[in-house]
Amino acid sequence: MTRAGGSPLGLHRVLEPAGVLPQAAWRLDPDPRIWPDEVRVRVDRLNLDAASFRQLRESCGGSAAAMRAAVTDIVASRGKMQNPVTGSGGMLTGVVAEAGPGSLLGLAPGDRIATLVSLSLTPLVIDDGLARWDGRTEQVPCAGHAILFGRSIATVLPDDLPGPLALAVLDVCGAPALTHRVVSEAARRAGGPGGTGGPVVAVLGAGGQSGSLSAAAARRAGARRVIGVVPVESEAAALRGAGLADPVVIADARDPVGLAGAVARAGGPADVTVVCVDVPGCEGGAVLATAEGGTVIFFSMATSFTAAALGAEGAAADVTMLIGNGYVPGHARLALDLVRAEPGVREIFESRVEEP
Amino acid sequence: MTRAGGSPLGLHRVLEPAGVLPQAAWRLDPDPRIWPDEVRVRVDRLNLDAASFRQLRESCGGSAAAMRAAVTDIVASRGKMQNPVTGSGGMLTGVVAEAGPGSLLGLAPGDRIATLVSLSLTPLVIDDGLARWDGRTEQVPCAGHAILFGRSIATVLPDDLPGPLALAVLDVCGAPALTHRVVSEAARRAGGPGGTGGPVVAVLGAGGQSGSLSAAAARRAGARRVIGVVPVESEAAALRGAGLADPVVIADARDPVGLAGAVARAGGPADVTVVCVDVPGCEGGAVLATAEGGTVIFFSMATSFTAAALGAEGAAADVTMLIGNGYVPGHARLALDLVRAEPGVREIFESRVEEP
Repeated sequence: MTRAGGSPLGLHRVLEPAGVLPQAAWRLDPDPRIWPDEVRVRVDRLNLDAASFRQLRESCGGSAAAMRAAVTDIVASRGKMQNPVTGSGGMLTGVVAEAGPGSLLGLAPGDRIATLVSLSLTPLVIDDGLARWDGRTEQVPCAGHAILFGRSIATVLPDDLPGPLALAVLDVCGAPALTHRVVSEAARRAGGPGGTGGPVVAVLGAGGQSGSLSAAAARRAGARRVIGVVPVESEAAALRGAGLADPVVIADARDPVGLAGAVARAGGPADVTVVCVDVPGCEGGAVLATAEGGTVIFFSMATSFTAAALGAEGAAADVTMLIGNGYVPGHARLALDLVRAEPGVREIFESRVEEP
Repeated sequence: MTRAGGSPLGLHRVLEPAGVLPQAAWRLDPDPRIWPDEVRVRVDRLNLDAASFRQLRESCGGSAAAMRAAVTDIVASRGKMQNPVTGSGGMLTGVVAEAGPGSLLGLAPGDRIATLVSLSLTPLVIDDGLARWDGRTEQVPCAGHAILFGRSIATVLPDDLPGPLALAVLDVCGAPALTHRVVSEAARRAGGPGGTGGPVVAVLGAGGQSGSLSAAAARRAGARRVIGVVPVESEAAALRGAGLADPVVIADARDPVGLAGAVARAGGPADVTVVCVDVPGCEGGAVLATAEGGTVIFFSMATSFTAAALGAEGAAADVTMLIGNGYVPGHARLALDLVRAEPGVREIFESRVEEP
């Protein structure tokens, strides 16, 4: 069939409401017939966003059957996997089935790839009812197809890393990249990396996937001290063993005063605070744990915009608050490099990622 | 009565859930008896946040009685005016009734003040059922009392400006202050204010209160061009008359492609985009209207964190996205100075603020 050129942002796939970007749309058209600049992918695995996975697990009471039904229902009704509660998606891996003649993504049939844009804007059809997913991890074995637009960034999976590990790393690769940029700038302002003036960085949720990568990125970018904050002793022990943060402190990030006190005692307040937890209600604590003139980077999809804005105002805290943009040039390469170079990061990922 | 010292952040006023900051709390204790570092204010006027006012008006079908009931119900059940849908509040004016001996706010009984922290964290009791509010504007005549904590910033109202005008200006004073800071930094990087290298700034909602102040602040900070974006011709005419933006363009900020095209034709993309609209769904457009490496500042309380984060990722847009912090040192002074110095700002405010 012949079609005029599609929109590189995928506007031609938006069914409702009309005119919005695919991420903001309620429903997309996942028709497998591609437009000239599109790519169709045979999906083999979804990686749900951490906030979305937690919400699904909790609302389903941990029942795998209920979780399978919830995800397949969302995808059937919306044409994409975007959790209506959290608004977030995740990413996927698969094999390129067809690349349109106008695609600029550089992909060819047979390439094993991971998407670097969110599932929340990726047209998707599930064919197997997710029968192989046991609901225990956010990695979901899946048969189906997905569509990449002209500007839907994807990367060929590396040969030297297991697929599930690479998928988990790529899913959160925006966090270490933006952390690296912000900490590097703070280090430059403070007199250069390696000097005694490097910034103090606190990573909330440093025992998790985006948190461990962000901690490693902060150190590489010249942090004088990386304070790793985790909720429980088991995570603290794993993080200490991984050697990614020093000191490691246990605090509930939802308890603002407790968190700020713990970070202060560990050498804070932080010049840069990185929020990598997947629970709501951490905005106030992140602000209070941060020094005047410092920066908070919110990566958690459970972040509330108003809670952050009004929380900082209410505490008269002059802090810069960044919405964690999942796209930073070079993000995939940096994250894969960190997991290769830092055994501690790889340990944490391997302990959390189920082998296929 | 004797009380041990309160928390400067007001934690001792949080009834539920325990341990969170007042802004995040469901319910506060508005007991009129003050703690040693607190101040009690006799309230005469509330200024609802624009997103909250719009939500209330729409959900009440514009009925003044229903709006009065909605606000009094919220305040009676929560001990503060925080719209449960938008999460936002606003601010208030009143007269200091009592200042505790340990208060560091520098206020004395009889001072006419405005709060510079959100109503969403300010203990409040309404005594008059808001009988004098006609529901037509966000300024709500109100009798009652409010409590300021040790760190609840407030400012004595200026003598030279009408109270409702000053209140409206102070309510949004964080926006011009942060805009001024970000545009100044961009101008410095581009070779200094006044040079031909100053940044291009787009203000979405430039015909409104925070928007007009932000446009004036951007120009003062060295913007080479201030593109004012408004939704309708009547606002465009008012903004042109005010002389705060050049050019003025009409576009729907919820239509990403339309908005980005309009900003591009007006001399964009923008190096700095300032979002001052009060409707949801403007995240994608703001990102698309901004140049690679540029900055978006979100002041709208209708902003969705996930829509911004995933929208930028989905468009592979390397933009810095800031959560508009309502507190920037010197914010009240800058905003009052702008409304005094810029007749165009004052015109826009006076056309939108009802005289008492």
